Amino acid sequence: MSSPPIQRALERIDLLGSISDNSNFRVRTLLSPANRRAAATLKDWMEKAGLIVEHTIDGSVRGILPGSNPEAPALLLGSHFDTVIDAGAYDGPLGILSALAAIETLQEEGIELPFPVHILGFSDEEGVRFHTTYIGSLGMLGQLDKARKAATDKDGNSLSFVLATEGWSNDASEICYQAEDVRGYVELHIEQGRVLEELQLPACGVSALVGQTRLKVIIEGQADHAGTTPMPIRRDALAGAAECIVELERLAKECESAVATVGQIEIHPGAANAIPQTATFSVDLRHADNEERLRLKNDFLKNFKFIAARRGLTLNWQTILNDDATPCDTRLTEQILDSVEATTGHRTTLVSGAGHDGVIFSRITPIGMIFVRCRDGLSHHPDEYASPEDIATGIEILVHFLRQQCTSQDG
Amino acid sequence: MSSPPIQRALERIDLLGSISDNSNFRVRTLLSPANRRAAATLKDWMEKAGLIVEHTIDGSVRGILPGSNPEAPALLLGSHFDTVIDAGAYDGPLGILSALAAIETLQEEGIELPFPVHILGFSDEEGVRFHTTYIGSLGMLGQLDKARKAATDKDGNSLSFVLATEGWSNDASEICYQAEDVRGYVELHIEQGRVLEELQLPACGVSALVGQTRLKVIIEGQADHAGTTPMPIRRDALAGAAECIVELERLAKECESAVATVGQIEIHPGAANAIPQTATFSVDLRHADNEERLRLKNDFLKNFKFIAARRGLTLNWQTILNDDATPCDTRLTEQILDSVEATTGHRTTLVSGAGHDGVIFSRITPIGMIFVRCRDGLSHHPDEYASPEDIATGIEILVHFLRQQCTSQDG
Repeated sequence: MSSPPIQRALERIDLLGSISDNSNFRVRTLLSPANRRAAATLKDWMEKAGLIVEHTIDGSVRGILPGSNPEAPALLLGSHFDTVIDAGAYDGPLGILSALAAIETLQEEGIELPFPVHILGFSDEEGVRFHTTYIGSLGMLGQLDKARKAATDKDGNSLSFVLATEGWSNDASEICYQAEDVRGYVELHIEQGRVLEELQLPACGVSALVGQTRLKVIIEGQADHAGTTPMPIRRDALAGAAECIVELERLAKECESAVATVGQIEIHPGAANAIPQTATFSVDLRHADNEERLRLKNDFLKNFKFIAARRGLTLNWQTILNDDATPCDTRLTEQILDSVEATTGHRTTLVSGAGHDGVIFSRITPIGMIFVRCRDGLSHHPDEYASPEDIATGIEILVHFLRQQCTSQDG
Repeated sequence: MSSPPIQRALERIDLLGSISDNSNFRVRTLLSPANRRAAATLKDWMEKAGLIVEHTIDGSVRGILPGSNPEAPALLLGSHFDTVIDAGAYDGPLGILSALAAIETLQEEGIELPFPVHILGFSDEEGVRFHTTYIGSLGMLGQLDKARKAATDKDGNSLSFVLATEGWSNDASEICYQAEDVRGYVELHIEQGRVLEELQLPACGVSALVGQTRLKVIIEGQADHAGTTPMPIRRDALAGAAECIVELERLAKECESAVATVGQIEIHPGAANAIPQTATFSVDLRHADNEERLRLKNDFLKNFKFIAARRGLTLNWQTILNDDATPCDTRLTEQILDSVEATTGHRTTLVSGAGHDGVIFSRITPIGMIFVRCRDGLSHHPDEYASPEDIATGIEILVHFLRQQCTSQDG
C-alpha cells in the first residue's frame, strides 16, 4: 500500500491528464483554456497542501513552502504541464505532482525544511504554440528575449501580443529568479527512453542533458526519366541521400552514446517514374560531450561530401540548431544518487537525450534530475505510461533527497 | 538547307507546340480545348498533303495515303499529340509530323507506294486526364475495355461519360484495326534518354520496349524519441529503407541494361526529433528481358527482407504494375536499321525504357521504332529539344525506309 500522498499523486496525474483542449486526444498549449484549467487545478492542490501559491502572466504556477528559514536560498522542484499534441499524462506533470507528494510526505512526517522549497509548474516547455521551447522557465528567469517574444503562433500573433491580450493578468506575480535566491533546481521526469527498462531499474540520476546539432541537408542531382536513363549516367539525389543516411547511422553507432537521427526527408519531383532531382533531409545529432558531437558532425559531413562528389551530386547544409550540452551539477547529482541508491539499491546515471527546463535554470543555479522508468520508452504518445510502483519509487527518492538536504552541511 | 517538307515539319512542331490549355506552360490532355485544336490543326495539315482525313470520337486523327493498291494491308506511322503537364514540343508530335514530312517528300519525288500509309495522331498516350495511358491507340483497336472506360478524371467523370458528352462526335469515324488490315506500325520518337548523346549518334533503331514492375514497399519500425533512444535498440524505418535503396541501386547496376528507381518516399511521423515509424517508397524496375526483370525483383526483395529482419523491421510490398516487355519485330527492325545505316552510317539499336503506342499495336501487327537524339535526355520538360539536323535525319530515315518498302519483296 502506498502512502496517502503517493496515492493522491497517482490520482492527480489521471485527473490532470483528463484536462485537454480536444475531446479525442490530450493537448494543452500555452494559455489555452485547458492549460489554464490545469494551472488552476495545480494551484488548488498546492493551496490544499498549505503552500503560498502564485501564477505568472504566461500561466505558470508556483507554490512556496517557506520552511524554518524563509530567507534562505530556495530549492526549486518542478516541471512543465503543457503537452504536445496527442500526448501522454506523465511527460511534465509527473515532475510537479511528485514534488508536491514529496512535500506532503514530509509534512505528514512533521519535518520542516531549513530552507524554502518552491514547486514550479511551467505553462510551456514543449513549445507547441510558438515553436519555441521553454517559455515558462524563461519567463521565471526574466529571460524571454526579443526574438522569442516576436515568435508567432499559427494565427500570426506574437508571443508579446498574446501575453498582453490573453495573459493570465488577474493577480499575476512577476517571478524573476536571481542566482542568489536559489540553492538548486531538481526535476523528476519520465526517462522517455528504454534504457531503464533494459536495465530493469525503476529510476536513476542524470549526469547531463545532451547537446544537440540539427542540420538541414540538401542533395541535388539531376531529374531524369526512370525508364530511359541507364544506371551508370544517373545522378540520383535520393540514392545519394540513402547512402548518407546509412553512413550517418554507421558513424553514430561507432561513437559511444551518440545518437543521430534522420526524421524527415523530402524529394523532388517525387514521381515514381522520375529520378529524384533533390533530396532534403534533417539530421538530429546529440551527445553529452560537445567536442565529441562536433567531431562526429565534421566526420559525417566529410563523408557526405565524399559520397556526393563520387556520385556527381552537390551537397549543401544549413545549421538549424547548435546547442551545447548542459551538465548536471556534480555535487547535487551525487546527493541525488545517494537517494537513488538508498531507495533502489543502484547508483546509475543516464544522459538525458531530451531537453528539460533545467537547461534554462542551469544558467543561474546548480541543476539535477531524476529519471523514472516509462513503458517501452514511449513519450509524446497517448500510450505513455509509468507504473504506480515506479512513480512511488520516484517520490521516495525525492523524499529521501529532501530529508538529506535538512542535514547536509550546506542545508 | 533542308527540303521544304523538313522545313515545314520544323515549323509545324513549333506551331503545334504553341497550342496549350495553359498560357504559362504546355499541356494538352484528352479532349481538352487545346487537344482538339491540335487535332484540327493536324487534320488541316494532312488534308493539305492530300491525305484522306478522319477523326475518332476521342479526338484521335488519321490521314490516309491510299497508294497504288488501296486494298493492300496498310503501313501505320504515327505517335500521340497529347502532352504531360509542362511538357516539351517533341514527345509525340515529332512522330506524327516526321511521318507527314516523309510522305510529302515521297510525293515531291513522285513516288507512289504500293500499299496505303496511314498517319495516326493519338489524342491520349500520356494518360494525364484519366491516369490510364494509351486511350488513343486502344480506341483505334476497339480495345477500350470496361475497366479503362470506368476510369474517372479529377471531376469524377468516367471515360465513357466523357466520350459520350465531350466526345468529338461530329462526323467521327469508328476506326477499328484488325490484324489483316495492317502490315506494320512504325513510330519515330525522341529517345528521352542520354545514350544517343553519349554515343554521338543522331538516331537509331529500337529492339524492344522494356517490361516494367512497379512496387510500393512499406517498411515498419518503431517511432521513438530521437534524443533518448540509444542507437543499438532503435528500429528506424528510414535507416532500413535507406539501406534497401542503396542495395537496389547496387543490384540494378550489376544487372546489364536493367534500370531501377526509387522516385517517391514518405515517412511517418516525419518530425526531425522522431525516429521514423514507417517508410513507404516506390520501386520502378525495367528490363527488356522479362525473366531478368523478375529475377532482379526476386533478388532485391530477398535482400530487402534480409535487411528488414536484421533490423527488426517488418517489410511489406504491393505490386502496382507488372507489364512484360514488348519486343520490336525483328524483320521490321532490320529494315529500319538498313535505313538508319544508310542515313547515319551506324546500325545501332536501343531498348526503349518508356512505353509507346507500339506496345498496344504489337497486339495485332509487327512494330518498329526509330529514336531521335534529344538534348540532355530531357523529356516531359519545357526544355525538351531535338535539333533541326537530328529531326531532318529522322525524317530521312523514314523516307529511306518507305522507299525500301516499295521495292522489298513483301512490299
